[in-house]
Amino acid sequence: MSPIPNGRVIFNEAPLAEGYPDAQKTLVYESNQTMDVETTPLNGGILVKTLVVSIDPYLRGRLRNPEKQSYNEAFVLGQPITSYSIAVVLRSENTNVKAGDHLYGNFPLVEYHILKDLTGAKKIENKEGIPWSLYTGIAGMPGKTAYYGWKAYAKPKKGETIFVTTGAGPVGSMVIQLAKLDGLKVIASAGSPEKVQFMKDIGADVAFNYKTESTDEILEKHGPIDIYWDHVGGEVLDLAFKHAARFARFIEVGLITGYNTGGIQPVKNFGNVLFKSLTIQGFIVGNLDAEYSEAFYNEIPARIARGEIKYLEYVKHGLQSAGQVLVDVLKGDNIGKAVIIVADK
Amino acid sequence: MSPIPNGRVIFNEAPLAEGYPDAQKTLVYESNQTMDVETTPLNGGILVKTLVVSIDPYLRGRLRNPEKQSYNEAFVLGQPITSYSIAVVLRSENTNVKAGDHLYGNFPLVEYHILKDLTGAKKIENKEGIPWSLYTGIAGMPGKTAYYGWKAYAKPKKGETIFVTTGAGPVGSMVIQLAKLDGLKVIASAGSPEKVQFMKDIGADVAFNYKTESTDEILEKHGPIDIYWDHVGGEVLDLAFKHAARFARFIEVGLITGYNTGGIQPVKNFGNVLFKSLTIQGFIVGNLDAEYSEAFYNEIPARIARGEIKYLEYVKHGLQSAGQVLVDVLKGDNIGKAVIIVADK
Repeated sequence: MSPIPNGRVIFNEAPLAEGYPDAQKTLVYESNQTMDVETTPLNGGILVKTLVVSIDPYLRGRLRNPEKQSYNEAFVLGQPITSYSIAVVLRSENTNVKAGDHLYGNFPLVEYHILKDLTGAKKIENKEGIPWSLYTGIAGMPGKTAYYGWKAYAKPKKGETIFVTTGAGPVGSMVIQLAKLDGLKVIASAGSPEKVQFMKDIGADVAFNYKTESTDEILEKHGPIDIYWDHVGGEVLDLAFKHAARFARFIEVGLITGYNTGGIQPVKNFGNVLFKSLTIQGFIVGNLDAEYSEAFYNEIPARIARGEIKYLEYVKHGLQSAGQVLVDVLKGDNIGKAVIIVADK
Repeated sequence: MSPIPNGRVIFNEAPLAEGYPDAQKTLVYESNQTMDVETTPLNGGILVKTLVVSIDPYLRGRLRNPEKQSYNEAFVLGQPITSYSIAVVLRSENTNVKAGDHLYGNFPLVEYHILKDLTGAKKIENKEGIPWSLYTGIAGMPGKTAYYGWKAYAKPKKGETIFVTTGAGPVGSMVIQLAKLDGLKVIASAGSPEKVQFMKDIGADVAFNYKTESTDEILEKHGPIDIYWDHVGGEVLDLAFKHAARFARFIEVGLITGYNTGGIQPVKNFGNVLFKSLTIQGFIVGNLDAEYSEAFYNEIPARIARGEIKYLEYVKHGLQSAGQVLVDVLKGDNIGKAVIIVADK
């Protein structure tokens, strides 16, 4: 077999701090490199083929000029970006994996690439036979974010009320379902009628479109809230402070309102932290992986297979779509977890 | 014995939301009422004489028009305010206390008054023989605030760094000493050279006057901080976010910057909660009393008696001084815990 084109997604140009990335300029698909997958030397490594790539809002933060400090590393201009992906092993000189095995990890957006070793990669057996794409979504990093944060910080009590933002997304929809399993009343917001319907379908007691209904009025009527699951920050966070019950827990997972506006909005109602004895917990999924990963993989794929946990996907095909899908998830135009299917097998 | 004047401190006029209370108008001392302490009927209650009254910044929040909602009850206009006090029993028809016993509680600022029962009052034995005034300070509510918050939320690890605001006050000075006992590096701020000296005397590694030195530069040089003990909010809170280490704990006990300025300042650097996986905990001392009170009274008065925990008091005499002392503590003109000695025994 001769060399074949090996497509990749390059970080081409940093978007301005304010505004959305440009679907054509920020990320660029290139196919001018080739690889002979049968003969390319592995030097002890593992040749993999990318099957599914996850596109998530947090990527926005890494698409910046490297001189700007943040909590995660900036992507390197001119190089492929990375994201959580499922890849299948084509050839291996590593005794721990063999051709046909599936790996999950934060891999480069390249059709074929060689892993030096298994650092950061996890072998997925998928005994349950659920779609591979789910292992980048509700059974992957977003699902873990929901599950780990819920187990570690939510301290749910039956009959309490939770408010979940971006409740139709892969994290939020998992939080809604975990909260219902624990007997809570769930208020959930999203930005379109289709998303509201999905939130109702998975059990939200009060699902509303924040673009057409007043979050303030909804929380006034259905609150106060004992848990606030925050993906958005900004004004909604201030409303959550306003409508928090005493001893409420705020779980801070994202502040998407600030991602494309050059900064996080000031918080006006912070005084409630003191007045209401609130607990606020920020976290990223990696903090809790050692503690909860095994329980997650034991529990969640099986529950998905049995239909106990539902999901919705926003599926595009081919790495060429990466730039547009990123803009879609930042604007909220996706319904369900955004994934790119690069190859079926 | 005939009736004697029974002085009291009345909530005379609510201060404006913005600005300090007026030392002459907000609280007014009245001595036109009398009591015959030997014959006044008790109806099963307990006649006590006030010995010491504590004056604390949080009182500002209760001196408001009652239509304004807050986390604590507004004082009633025209009635005596209440505060944590030590009183001695003169006569008792309650079998649980007798003349000569000392009680600690949130009592009215009146020289002589009758308690219906012991609800909210705690008998203090003072086997250690420390000054009674300390039971309203480092061995009272402020000391408990420091001790309870430290035990429940600080999660200190030897070698970590803490930043304590208002470190010369009764809460802050206790926090400094608890942190040193646990092997931490302590950065502490206060607003005068005398206060800075006191913070050094009790063990602060870096003690500075925030009025003459830059908090930002001090934290840049001696941080990052693993624990932030917040009494002030506002800009200092934003600097604490800026200089927080990953996984830092913020303990929110007061937001004094906002008490006299009509509101809490917006928080600009809240994004760090997410980026640095911070934990923020607001609390009031009453939340934790059931869990930690016994340990506190077993440990702290004895440590004070042995000289292991040091203190500083700002002592005034007579209930007439209440209005001025309140302004003093809100302006930070006091050095040490503000107490009013009403009677020596």
